[in-house]
Amino acid sequence: MITSKSNAWFRRVRNAIREHSDEIVIEGPKAVADAVAAGWKPIALPEFSPALLKSISDTKTSQGVIGLFERPRWTRDQIFSRDGIAVALDGVQDPGNVGTIVRLAAAFDAAGVILLPGCADPYGPKAIRASAGAILSVPIVAMTAEELLAIRRPLYAADSNGPTGENPEGILVMGSEGQGVSESIRKRAKPIAVETSGRVESLNVAAAAAILLWRSFRSRKGA
Amino acid sequence: MITSKSNAWFRRVRNAIREHSDEIVIEGPKAVADAVAAGWKPIALPEFSPALLKSISDTKTSQGVIGLFERPRWTRDQIFSRDGIAVALDGVQDPGNVGTIVRLAAAFDAAGVILLPGCADPYGPKAIRASAGAILSVPIVAMTAEELLAIRRPLYAADSNGPTGENPEGILVMGSEGQGVSESIRKRAKPIAVETSGRVESLNVAAAAAILLWRSFRSRKGA
Repeated sequence: MITSKSNAWFRRVRNAIREHSDEIVIEGPKAVADAVAAGWKPIALPEFSPALLKSISDTKTSQGVIGLFERPRWTRDQIFSRDGIAVALDGVQDPGNVGTIVRLAAAFDAAGVILLPGCADPYGPKAIRASAGAILSVPIVAMTAEELLAIRRPLYAADSNGPTGENPEGILVMGSEGQGVSESIRKRAKPIAVETSGRVESLNVAAAAAILLWRSFRSRKGA
Repeated sequence: MITSKSNAWFRRVRNAIREHSDEIVIEGPKAVADAVAAGWKPIALPEFSPALLKSISDTKTSQGVIGLFERPRWTRDQIFSRDGIAVALDGVQDPGNVGTIVRLAAAFDAAGVILLPGCADPYGPKAIRASAGAILSVPIVAMTAEELLAIRRPLYAADSNGPTGENPEGILVMGSEGQGVSESIRKRAKPIAVETSGRVESLNVAAAAAILLWRSFRSRKGA
C-alpha cells in the first residue's frame, strides 16, 4: 500500500486526475471492472492509503479502487465508419452534462461524440464519473465548426423553437443552455426541438439529448 | 448596499441557503424575474457587497441578484386534483438530479413531484439552480411509501428490466441509480423501462425521467 505523497505512482495518478492529457483515472470497482471487461488494460491499479486517496478522489465513488488508463485517442473514421447518429456538443461547459451525454451515446448506440469548441474535457474526473463507465467505449473527437460543416451527413441542431416531429439522424448538434448552437452551424442545420408544455424556456442539455437520442435510436430500429 | 456579515438580512439569507426550512433563496436575475412574473412575492431582494455575495453564493449564477422567498408549502390535493402524471422520487440523493426532475415536471406538465424518503431537499441551492426557475411553480410534497401505496392511481416503477412499450400515467416512481425503487413499491407497481442498446447498465435517473415524462406528456396530448 502506497502511503507517501512523493511516491511516483501517486504523483502520476494525481497528475492524471488534474491534467488528464495522456493518462486518465477511472474510479470505483464497478467502473474499473467494466473497463477491464471491455478490453481496456489499466496501466496500474495502485493501492493508496485512505489519507492519500482522500486527497485526490471522491472516496465514496472510488471505494478505494483507482485505475490508471491511457487517454483514449479516436479518429474521425472511427465515428463515421459506424452506423448511428453522432452527437456534437457546442460550448457545453458543464462536465457533468458532457459525461451524461457520453453515457447516453452508449445507451442509444450513437456512433460517437464530437466536441466543438468550448466544451468541458470528457476525460476529467467529473465527466468520467457522470459517464458511469461508458467513457472508454464511446469514440470522442474534437472538431471545429468548419470541419463539422465539411462532413456530408444530415445535420440537425437542437433549437427550442424548431419543429418537433422529426427524428434526428446523421449529426445532432446540442448547444449550451445560454447560447444555443453557434450561428455558423445553425445556418446550415435543420432545427429540431423537443415538444414541451412551454412552462419552461428550455430543457437541460442532457435531458434534451436523452429524448432526441432515444428517438433516433428507436427510429433506426424501425419502432 | 449591505457590507457587513452581522447585518440581519445577510444572516437571514445565509440561513435560508444553508437550512432552507422556512425561507429559500433564488439566485440570478432571470430566475428571480421568472418567480416574480409567476406571482411569487419576494420577502426581500437584498443588495450585498461583492465580498459578502461571494461568501454565500455562486456569483456566476447570481450575477449579484438574490431573492429571498418563503419556502413553498404544497398539499397532496394540489397534486392530485390536477391532470397529468405525478413523479415520485425514491432515494434520489443528488440535488442536481432532483432539481433537473422538477424542471422536467414543469416542461412536461406533470401534476407534481412526490418525495419519498432519502431524497435531496429540492429547496437547497444546488437543486434550485438545477430547476432553472421551475422550483416555485411545481407542487412538491413529501410522503412515505405506505402513504404513496394508499393512493388509488395507476402506479409505475422505473426498472431497467421492465417492459418498454407502455407510456406511464398516474404515478411514476424513479429510484436511485444504485438501489432502484424500494421493494415495497416495486411489488405493487408496474415496471417500466426505457429501451436501450444494452451497452450501459442503466441511465442517469434524470435522463430516464426525461424520456418517460416526455412519453407520458405526448400520449396525454394524443400524439
